[in-house]
Amino acid sequence: MVPCMGMSFYDKLKFNADGLIPAIVQDQKTGRVLMMAWMNRASLEKTVETGKTHFWSRSRQKFWMKGEESGHTQSVKDIAFDCDGDTLLVQVEQTGPACHEGYRSCFFQSVEGASAFKTTEPQLIPPEQIYHKK
Amino acid sequence: MVPCMGMSFYDKLKFNADGLIPAIVQDQKTGRVLMMAWMNRASLEKTVETGKTHFWSRSRQKFWMKGEESGHTQSVKDIAFDCDGDTLLVQVEQTGPACHEGYRSCFFQSVEGASAFKTTEPQLIPPEQIYHKK
Repeated sequence: MVPCMGMSFYDKLKFNADGLIPAIVQDQKTGRVLMMAWMNRASLEKTVETGKTHFWSRSRQKFWMKGEESGHTQSVKDIAFDCDGDTLLVQVEQTGPACHEGYRSCFFQSVEGASAFKTTEPQLIPPEQIYHKK
Repeated sequence: MVPCMGMSFYDKLKFNADGLIPAIVQDQKTGRVLMMAWMNRASLEKTVETGKTHFWSRSRQKFWMKGEESGHTQSVKDIAFDCDGDTLLVQVEQTGPACHEGYRSCFFQSVEGASAFKTTEPQLIPPEQIYHKK
């Protein structure tokens, strides 16, 4: 007899018409939401398998590992999915800034008043130092 | 002379081909990510104007205020947007559970091992008590 292995969490997920699911990435220690990016099934499997976040870039149509160029990788601590199975929440330990603009979080700007906005956290590294270093 | 009013944050945002932008909703006090839902321009404006979260339901093709049926509304404390302008992060004070299944957060299930999953938080209210009460 084949033992019942239970339902896979992959069966609970709904990828969209392009085969993608949004993944919210949160710093496990501080609770800071760092970024949101898209995964396809292959990048999610690679994330589970390696413990490093992998995504699918819609603009570049490319599979990528977070930090592959910058070194600012994310070690996965937990992967949750929501009640509709159409969004992931990934808890990570982040090396360096998560944002390609050199901020800790991509959400470094907030609305102020009716329509103005302000920067809410310091830039940790100038972007040119992130991507053009040997 | 007309004073320079600066750029509106709306000009920084990129709504997708359907006119929508994903909004991550986070409990400001605890840092718990509660849910992710979609906003169109009108629901975002209404959110800014009223201080209560409003969304666009893709499945029901309907404008809705969070908590309009359940009473579990969200008072907005901050609205941030990411470096690409294609995702919002809304800090709220949540009344009751955020999830329509009666959990504090919609992300109440996490991956365990290679493909199994587990429930990570208690159900606060059975769903039938949320939606069928007078």
